[in-house]
Amino acid sequence: MKEFELINHYFKGRGIARRDVKVGIGDDCAIVTVPEKHQLAITTDTLVAGVHFFEDIPPRALGHRALAVNLSDLAAMGAEPTWISIGLTLPEVDMEWLEAFTEGMHEIAEYYNVQLIGGDTTQGPLTITICAKGIIPNDKALTRSGAKVGDWIYVTGELGDAALAIEARKRQIPLGDKQLKRLEEKLHFPTPRVAAGQVLRGMATACIDISDGLLADLQHILNKSAVGAIVNIEDVPVSAVMQQLQPEALRRELSLAYGDDYELLFTVNDSNKGAVEARLRQYGVEPVCIGQITASAGKLELLNEGEKCPLPRSGYQHF
Amino acid sequence: MKEFELINHYFKGRGIARRDVKVGIGDDCAIVTVPEKHQLAITTDTLVAGVHFFEDIPPRALGHRALAVNLSDLAAMGAEPTWISIGLTLPEVDMEWLEAFTEGMHEIAEYYNVQLIGGDTTQGPLTITICAKGIIPNDKALTRSGAKVGDWIYVTGELGDAALAIEARKRQIPLGDKQLKRLEEKLHFPTPRVAAGQVLRGMATACIDISDGLLADLQHILNKSAVGAIVNIEDVPVSAVMQQLQPEALRRELSLAYGDDYELLFTVNDSNKGAVEARLRQYGVEPVCIGQITASAGKLELLNEGEKCPLPRSGYQHF
Repeated sequence: MKEFELINHYFKGRGIARRDVKVGIGDDCAIVTVPEKHQLAITTDTLVAGVHFFEDIPPRALGHRALAVNLSDLAAMGAEPTWISIGLTLPEVDMEWLEAFTEGMHEIAEYYNVQLIGGDTTQGPLTITICAKGIIPNDKALTRSGAKVGDWIYVTGELGDAALAIEARKRQIPLGDKQLKRLEEKLHFPTPRVAAGQVLRGMATACIDISDGLLADLQHILNKSAVGAIVNIEDVPVSAVMQQLQPEALRRELSLAYGDDYELLFTVNDSNKGAVEARLRQYGVEPVCIGQITASAGKLELLNEGEKCPLPRSGYQHF
Repeated sequence: MKEFELINHYFKGRGIARRDVKVGIGDDCAIVTVPEKHQLAITTDTLVAGVHFFEDIPPRALGHRALAVNLSDLAAMGAEPTWISIGLTLPEVDMEWLEAFTEGMHEIAEYYNVQLIGGDTTQGPLTITICAKGIIPNDKALTRSGAKVGDWIYVTGELGDAALAIEARKRQIPLGDKQLKRLEEKLHFPTPRVAAGQVLRGMATACIDISDGLLADLQHILNKSAVGAIVNIEDVPVSAVMQQLQPEALRRELSLAYGDDYELLFTVNDSNKGAVEARLRQYGVEPVCIGQITASAGKLELLNEGEKCPLPRSGYQHF
């Protein structure tokens, strides 16, 4: 057991040191300061080996991904990420694995100026629970409940590549080595839309990150906002590899009904449409309008070149 | 997998609703407000089946215990507990088990006015990670680093009963059914010293909760404060059952080198000694002075009736 105590120590010396952290790792609690006129955003995600990732995922990718999925939730609220705590359960102490895992985690933490302030390392089946915290100016949080009839529906980038990386392996979809490598990179190192989320404060009417699949996550917005939506599937952005993918039903399933890309899905009213697009482009994000909010509460309709088409089998695919 | 989503829903309707929670369960993040002139205390504990608890622990006890160990960390900083997030990994969806588990968790959450604001329920080997948050007036947190030479060393209650409950089972120590039941109650339903922690703000010079064993946890204070200590073992409070326990070496091991009681261990300077004792008694806590801080940095000495005696085998016992 002593080894597991050492790991906490090992985590301690790494990463950035924020000035708002008054007590960091090494006491009963961390003590942090939330700036005046700000609220605190808190999210928790658990990743279980064999359920949320293949057991042979490179540990550096796992470290990145475990934190990225949490930062994506903060981004979806428009929050600025600040601190994280980690509950890490490991079957054994493998220093090489840990070195790579913490490297992946600290790389993304440093990039987003996030400090690891505590956690617990225990022995057991590989499981990672991260609780990420962020700050946001009072009453500026983006929720799922503000979409209004007539609002435009946007996504922040291409969908389905991470899904294709998983399914290529499970269903033996034939892909070139180079293509597969690029897709796996997207699966393993998702980019949380942290800057985009903050840009959308005060402009988006609703926002969510796509973790369960575009349609499932849009449905969350519709339910919470008591509105409906039309989505034009030919407008849903996909990568060049995905454009080539046959049959069409598979392409639709992966891009519409599968999570793991961690793009943001948001709604914006007509008068803010141009401003949102311009601001996001300044941050290197190309927003794509894929549909519009309707008055049919809870109802989601798909159009393909103007023709109604059925929903593909629903989201929340995992391993 | 759908079942696991339902569980989040199941958690949602339960427990108390605090006014400082602006967005609770059901969005990408929770949004909460920290009062002015207060800091945030954050702690994380993971419990793994077979490592931190017997697999056959009653689920209501597990729900209580998982939260209690986190509240104990907040108590050790002098913080007032406010919100918790839970990462819950379950091998299967067993509604009867869940009903009892959440009952145990909500009972203690309600007692301490703590709101469950989010989490993630996943499928896998039984693991519980709770991230608990609390608030504390600026710069009032009790740390491990403030003990000074001459300070008195206190504990808030009897030590070793939870350890005896575990070891009675593992080593077949003969105990009456009634005794065993009472000890298991203490193991399963520890009482975090939340009020005591808050009373100690501004009075204790250092504080920690005893989770790894009295001596191991005192050693943390000594290391962080760069001081030493003398502990009079005949003053360490134990229950009537423990007083009877033979051999003496076992009694010492369980009361000095074993955690799981979740009493607070704290230091206080001579001029505050009387005030601390009186204030804690008002809250129903009987503090017991067990020794004194010395100048021998990092050095812990045990006295038995004034005679030096060796340290028992060191703490951090688990399953």
